[in-house]
Amino acid sequence: MSYQINETHDPNLRSWVESANDPNTDFPIQNLPYGIFKRSDSEEDFRIGVAIGDQILDLEKCDKANLLPGVAGSAVRLNFPGNINRLMWLGQHAWATLRQRLSWLLREDRADIQLNKKLVRKILLPAAEAEVAVPANIGDYTDFYASVYHATNIGKMFRPDNPLMPNYKWVPIGYHGRASSIVVSGTPVRRPIGQTKDDNAEAPTFGPSKVLDYELEVGFFVGGGNDQGKPIKITEAEDHIFGLCLVNDWSARDIQRWEYQPLGPFLSKSFATTISPWIVTMEALAPFRAPAFKRPAGDPEPLPYLDSPENRERGGFDINLEVLISTEQMREKGIAPHRLSRSNTQDLYWTFAQMLTHHTSNGCNLRPGDLMASGTVSGATKDSRGCLIELTERGAEPINLPTGEVRRFLQDGDEGILRGYCEREGFRRIGFGECRGVVLPVSV
Amino acid sequence: MSYQINETHDPNLRSWVESANDPNTDFPIQNLPYGIFKRSDSEEDFRIGVAIGDQILDLEKCDKANLLPGVAGSAVRLNFPGNINRLMWLGQHAWATLRQRLSWLLREDRADIQLNKKLVRKILLPAAEAEVAVPANIGDYTDFYASVYHATNIGKMFRPDNPLMPNYKWVPIGYHGRASSIVVSGTPVRRPIGQTKDDNAEAPTFGPSKVLDYELEVGFFVGGGNDQGKPIKITEAEDHIFGLCLVNDWSARDIQRWEYQPLGPFLSKSFATTISPWIVTMEALAPFRAPAFKRPAGDPEPLPYLDSPENRERGGFDINLEVLISTEQMREKGIAPHRLSRSNTQDLYWTFAQMLTHHTSNGCNLRPGDLMASGTVSGATKDSRGCLIELTERGAEPINLPTGEVRRFLQDGDEGILRGYCEREGFRRIGFGECRGVVLPVSV
Repeated sequence: MSYQINETHDPNLRSWVESANDPNTDFPIQNLPYGIFKRSDSEEDFRIGVAIGDQILDLEKCDKANLLPGVAGSAVRLNFPGNINRLMWLGQHAWATLRQRLSWLLREDRADIQLNKKLVRKILLPAAEAEVAVPANIGDYTDFYASVYHATNIGKMFRPDNPLMPNYKWVPIGYHGRASSIVVSGTPVRRPIGQTKDDNAEAPTFGPSKVLDYELEVGFFVGGGNDQGKPIKITEAEDHIFGLCLVNDWSARDIQRWEYQPLGPFLSKSFATTISPWIVTMEALAPFRAPAFKRPAGDPEPLPYLDSPENRERGGFDINLEVLISTEQMREKGIAPHRLSRSNTQDLYWTFAQMLTHHTSNGCNLRPGDLMASGTVSGATKDSRGCLIELTERGAEPINLPTGEVRRFLQDGDEGILRGYCEREGFRRIGFGECRGVVLPVSV
Repeated sequence: MSYQINETHDPNLRSWVESANDPNTDFPIQNLPYGIFKRSDSEEDFRIGVAIGDQILDLEKCDKANLLPGVAGSAVRLNFPGNINRLMWLGQHAWATLRQRLSWLLREDRADIQLNKKLVRKILLPAAEAEVAVPANIGDYTDFYASVYHATNIGKMFRPDNPLMPNYKWVPIGYHGRASSIVVSGTPVRRPIGQTKDDNAEAPTFGPSKVLDYELEVGFFVGGGNDQGKPIKITEAEDHIFGLCLVNDWSARDIQRWEYQPLGPFLSKSFATTISPWIVTMEALAPFRAPAFKRPAGDPEPLPYLDSPENRERGGFDINLEVLISTEQMREKGIAPHRLSRSNTQDLYWTFAQMLTHHTSNGCNLRPGDLMASGTVSGATKDSRGCLIELTERGAEPINLPTGEVRRFLQDGDEGILRGYCEREGFRRIGFGECRGVVLPVSV
């Protein structure tokens, strides 16, 4: 069963939450992304909510007010405080039912709700008064390497003679990342310390990373998992995907360069990974599907276990991505964040369905709430490179900022900001919100 | 605070559980390893127990019978069903208190307990009637590569020109493994399917791994963790280690060879990792500590963050390890498992304290119940190689079994069996129990 366009995607739908009708909002009534939140500075448990305009709809309170009958209410009540893993586990029928109900609840023609000011005050919280958190209990986090442009650009720097490995066009290359250090947008990220070694030095030294980078990625959360030893077929892969978010896979390039052989990146990545708080569901994204990457002539076709007509025709996503930077000086002077690059998930060589199927092809079991990420989303052009090491050619071509500052890599106080949104003629624009993090200096 | 030898290690202590006094048992009263268990074929929750001889002491029932006063009782009651993460989190004072109390409860001179047949029937369950499970909720699993002999042997095969990477003697090399597919000893392991490519082939093929291997490792569970951005110093590292177990890091060498560049092993390992069910505590191991690896002349000293006098003097462990194989034919003919190799954790180039400190040096946070493993424990001699690819020189020197069968790699029906034990003059021998798994054929 694939995710279909239905009445919840109708571009003419308007919400009684006025801010959701703003053409620039990421969270119109056509989106309805899930997250967890609580009132800032309160001792409440984090609970499930939906972003709508500049508000959060409190699903627990909606349920208590009997606004979510049947499966929709169960899908909310089932969750433990602090995550929505149970909703992820429920699968497409429950997801569709809940979405339909929420869409209906939030429609402009539900003036009965809007007029009940007391109810509205209970079930809505301005996002500005809320604290959000990582929405799932993430059992395992896997990071892929799905942009062939990124893999080629990086490969050139680390292995000039051999930029793209011979396995790249056959295997959706991925590796296990660190789940414990995944943080939600807005959490400051401390510059890591580690071993680095200059090419000409006799010995490595131990100290703060000097080559700190961001990586612009898109992640997806696993819905229902699979039993160990039971692979998920490509034709069923998307049934197991709950939704997508933005991921910043912070990377200390100098640590990475010294440590990564032969077992891959480790401490260069595990100090922090930032995700956006709102999970945009597969159903919300139905209008923004795209064909899988068009492989250039000469590239092999995917092996049969990674191939299906549906994956070829609409396994991809048309998501516009941006990275911006805001330095301390820019914030002091009131200068808006500066855009560093734009790219699109259509630039990914492998689809999410292919990543998920490959991941389970050996019998590996996935669990609800597992996170997989795309790897840096870079495109073919220079202005679409999704990390600084690519953008600045390893520091050789520094970036000039509007303050006159220059950046090769991230400095303390710099904030990295990822944004993502989908636009298509005949549909309402939806967005992912932001994925932000400020770099803190090494602690003394 | 380091783990001291005390009265619980007294070799003259005997237990009223007769089987614990058998000189060959892995679980005398001096050991007292923790796990979780339930009565086989029951619907009970898994709960915390201690292995003693051929019995399991049911700590929940001990607590209910008021046999665990104060901290000892809390350390049991705090745990959620299905794991002992809360006990791990409590730290050394609680661990020591509980151990002391359990040692006292199980001593021969507690004839009052032994004579109370009704109580004994309640608090003891024969291990043969119990089912065990993975004892912790493992948030993240990290696998190191700490035997320089293994790294050199493997390196020769994968990279003949460059067997040992220049970082090896500086960096405790490790990578993130898959937590979801960790299973307890006794769970069958299905042969994985995957992409492999012969050197001369034009394209890879997708099918059952033909080069399935085991890896003999020792793992340790994290006790109290650390906050993100707050590294753990080498002098405090062992405060954060709860105890050790055996780990079989099953490996599909043909999948590994094709997939591992440039981001490390992934599906070649993630189909299954088997651990022994009983966690031998750091305190139980106090008599069996050893100096850190004696680096040969010319090797660099560890960088200061990985070095301390205590780590040098007793950062290592003297644990004897063995791998055995039992084929289907051997089992049918009643032939005992055949030993393939023996090695010792003293062969590890890096200590567990160094691995843990390195892991957090970048600010990465650990959580109670996280598992780290040593990597294959191979020694300098040929009969101490901890996996088949090393033992058979990549299949060139097959192993002859007592049935006349020959093995290059694991066949369907083969059972891999890991054993570990500590012996030292003046102390009682303690063991780890077994870590077993039978290879199942690919499912059709």
